[in-house]
Amino acid sequence: MKAKSVILPADQMPRQWYNILADIKLNPPLGPDGKPLQPEALAPVFPMNLIEQEVSSQRWIDIPEPVLDVLSIWRPGVLTRADRFEKALGTPARIYFKYEGASPPGSHKPNTAIPQAYYNKVFGIENITTETGAGQWGSALAFACSQFGLNCKVFMVRISFDQKPYRKAMMEAWGGQCIASPSTETRAGQAALDKDPDTPGSLGIAISEAVEAAVGDTSGKTRYSLGSVLNHVMLHQTIIGLEAQKQLAMINEYPDIIIGCAGGGSNFAGLAFPFIQDKINGKAIEIYPVEPKACPTLTRSPFVYDHGDTARYTPLLPMHSLGHAFVPAPIHAGGLRYHGMAPTVSQLAHEGIITPQSVSQVDAYKAGVLWARTEGVIPAPETNNALAQVVIEAQKAKEEGKEKVIVFSFSGHGLLDLTGYEKFLSGKLSDYELSDDDMAKSTAVFADFPKPQDLNSR
Amino acid sequence: MKAKSVILPADQMPRQWYNILADIKLNPPLGPDGKPLQPEALAPVFPMNLIEQEVSSQRWIDIPEPVLDVLSIWRPGVLTRADRFEKALGTPARIYFKYEGASPPGSHKPNTAIPQAYYNKVFGIENITTETGAGQWGSALAFACSQFGLNCKVFMVRISFDQKPYRKAMMEAWGGQCIASPSTETRAGQAALDKDPDTPGSLGIAISEAVEAAVGDTSGKTRYSLGSVLNHVMLHQTIIGLEAQKQLAMINEYPDIIIGCAGGGSNFAGLAFPFIQDKINGKAIEIYPVEPKACPTLTRSPFVYDHGDTARYTPLLPMHSLGHAFVPAPIHAGGLRYHGMAPTVSQLAHEGIITPQSVSQVDAYKAGVLWARTEGVIPAPETNNALAQVVIEAQKAKEEGKEKVIVFSFSGHGLLDLTGYEKFLSGKLSDYELSDDDMAKSTAVFADFPKPQDLNSR
Repeated sequence: MKAKSVILPADQMPRQWYNILADIKLNPPLGPDGKPLQPEALAPVFPMNLIEQEVSSQRWIDIPEPVLDVLSIWRPGVLTRADRFEKALGTPARIYFKYEGASPPGSHKPNTAIPQAYYNKVFGIENITTETGAGQWGSALAFACSQFGLNCKVFMVRISFDQKPYRKAMMEAWGGQCIASPSTETRAGQAALDKDPDTPGSLGIAISEAVEAAVGDTSGKTRYSLGSVLNHVMLHQTIIGLEAQKQLAMINEYPDIIIGCAGGGSNFAGLAFPFIQDKINGKAIEIYPVEPKACPTLTRSPFVYDHGDTARYTPLLPMHSLGHAFVPAPIHAGGLRYHGMAPTVSQLAHEGIITPQSVSQVDAYKAGVLWARTEGVIPAPETNNALAQVVIEAQKAKEEGKEKVIVFSFSGHGLLDLTGYEKFLSGKLSDYELSDDDMAKSTAVFADFPKPQDLNSR
Repeated sequence: MKAKSVILPADQMPRQWYNILADIKLNPPLGPDGKPLQPEALAPVFPMNLIEQEVSSQRWIDIPEPVLDVLSIWRPGVLTRADRFEKALGTPARIYFKYEGASPPGSHKPNTAIPQAYYNKVFGIENITTETGAGQWGSALAFACSQFGLNCKVFMVRISFDQKPYRKAMMEAWGGQCIASPSTETRAGQAALDKDPDTPGSLGIAISEAVEAAVGDTSGKTRYSLGSVLNHVMLHQTIIGLEAQKQLAMINEYPDIIIGCAGGGSNFAGLAFPFIQDKINGKAIEIYPVEPKACPTLTRSPFVYDHGDTARYTPLLPMHSLGHAFVPAPIHAGGLRYHGMAPTVSQLAHEGIITPQSVSQVDAYKAGVLWARTEGVIPAPETNNALAQVVIEAQKAKEEGKEKVIVFSFSGHGLLDLTGYEKFLSGKLSDYELSDDDMAKSTAVFADFPKPQDLNSR
């Protein structure tokens, strides 16, 4: 029998992460004074060893042995041929995917949660705070903290907290604490509640709360952790693409097209960045980050300086942003709801090295259901966005009669996010596209902000 | 880095199942007249090709290519060393587990759902009915039916149906239909509702409904499927143990102790039966099926002839049984709630070839939480029963200072069954043991039934 999955032997697991900052340049983050931020200014928020990684431009960074040891619970991940999905689409394309749902919390998020917990531990930190939207990140960090004996406090966007009690139970099973945001524990949370006691919350508010809870602990034993957007997060995720490169080489394949869903950008970056290095070095390869039309950060919003959170605690980052107060319409069922985008991913899009795409949520769930009924695993709502683009490319290949090789990142399974499927299957899911008016309103905040320079990044 | 998991190459996946009926004998199932049932009598319930498999005593049975093809979505499964769990227990024992949570529905159940759907398809069947308690089996069969283009109708015990809306969503994502049992669709369901309109339902009633719905379809295109207990189900699950044997040989290990949780018996049998063949052939090996003290079928109930369902539609099977009307106390949080036990497993226990164990649910969840915080994956409640026994054996090994090799079956992950963890972590889970009085009441039904013979099975 032909193997469905390409297995990378454990002794060939990547020992170094690939740092894209060796190959592109970014506009610097800006402090409250509008000047480039000194790394030390972030010391109350992150441990210094992670800050050093955040600003490093060293191409290859060693993965510490204790991190490899925990990653080995589910890595190396498989690279799998989606032959049943291909057959259902009748496409000559060969579709491969990196499956990230095998991690204990079921998504790619632990790839960075584990090293982040490790570096905090090594730096003497005892408590980590963070926020979570749909719950993937909070679960991943709670799991990671359990591995290194750290306390973990997760501010979970209230609407998700109420709709997904299982996520709280997961975090608690790993010893984490999960509270609804906005909460009365922080000034940012209290302010949001004062404004609207019934607010569903937002990722921006939850980030403000988590940052405040970390910085406000005067013992110095608490830091904050972010699950996407930042350079070191993208770095940690590159293990996905580095594994994929080895696995594709084992079967003598090379991708024509790379696809990943993009909210803050880390799942996309994880698969894509190692291939971007190839592209910069001359390989012909199309690279598509895919986002929902309800939150079209890369495809429609401007490249600006913006804050990462609603209360504007974070530095200004150079990125595509819908505005730090943006909240996607509740009609949008899936994840990928963040207003901004990783500065690295934003810069690559700005320079045309990658080609952002957006898809409708009905198409996304349609692709997800076809996947479940052919390949078996029920995909996470985020993954469905990547899948919708895979369907488009597979159909193009069919029309053109070309045997294209498509490789995409399967960010996680959807077993804890089935509500969207229920809505879709009962015909209650409708399409939603952000209107120009709403976009103009949410991006009006940039008027007085500094503008990023038009860098030639290489 | 040392590999945590032993990977079996795809081309070494077992091509045949091991049939324990080549090595032991069973009392025959009895029909309504009290006489041994002729296989043909089951034809309205199961397709003939599966009935032939049910009564076969051929030692090795080929796995059809289309079945191998679907199994390859997640098989061969890994055999993994639980080194972090060992370390937390401070035991000299080496603990290995076969992880069955990698299947799309997250449990071992698809190992038999896939071949059952396949054999039905080949026989020309278009619709399959079944029942589900916690939802693992219904999800697995819905997934399997989606792979072979069959319609799937699942009668789900009402209390689970209400408490676990996600299970219904899962089945629907795979195109299955899920309805609460008792329902008004069958006479058995209507009778249960007439007796008590607010009944929480039971597995016994749901089986009656599913059997009736299959037999009652006069088109002849509908059959019933059972996820445990029967000989062919045990057969299909042996792929777990056959893989484990190859993987243990790859690392030059052989188990001193085999452990699996037992409800209807199929997860236990899947790992254990191939090793029982070794034991029959002279290997010194302890084999423990583990059940909850709330539903002590093997450890406390008599070896009798009993029906598989409450409405007594099924033949009489020779098994350990708590009585076909038995329903475990609602205080029992996990799965493994079935009143009976696979006749093969029952016979092996009756002859002392395997040694049944029972554990308290608090110990089970305690072991499950320790596992989640060391090995990462949150175990299914059923798996926690096996884990509690693993803890006992690991501690014994520590006391005795012996490097025992323990191999257990990790039946599935618990991401869809987190309520028990919530109760446990908030101190609301208490122990429960079936009282002698309740046991006497539920087993009183056997008074007039025929008795199985005391076979020397070999």
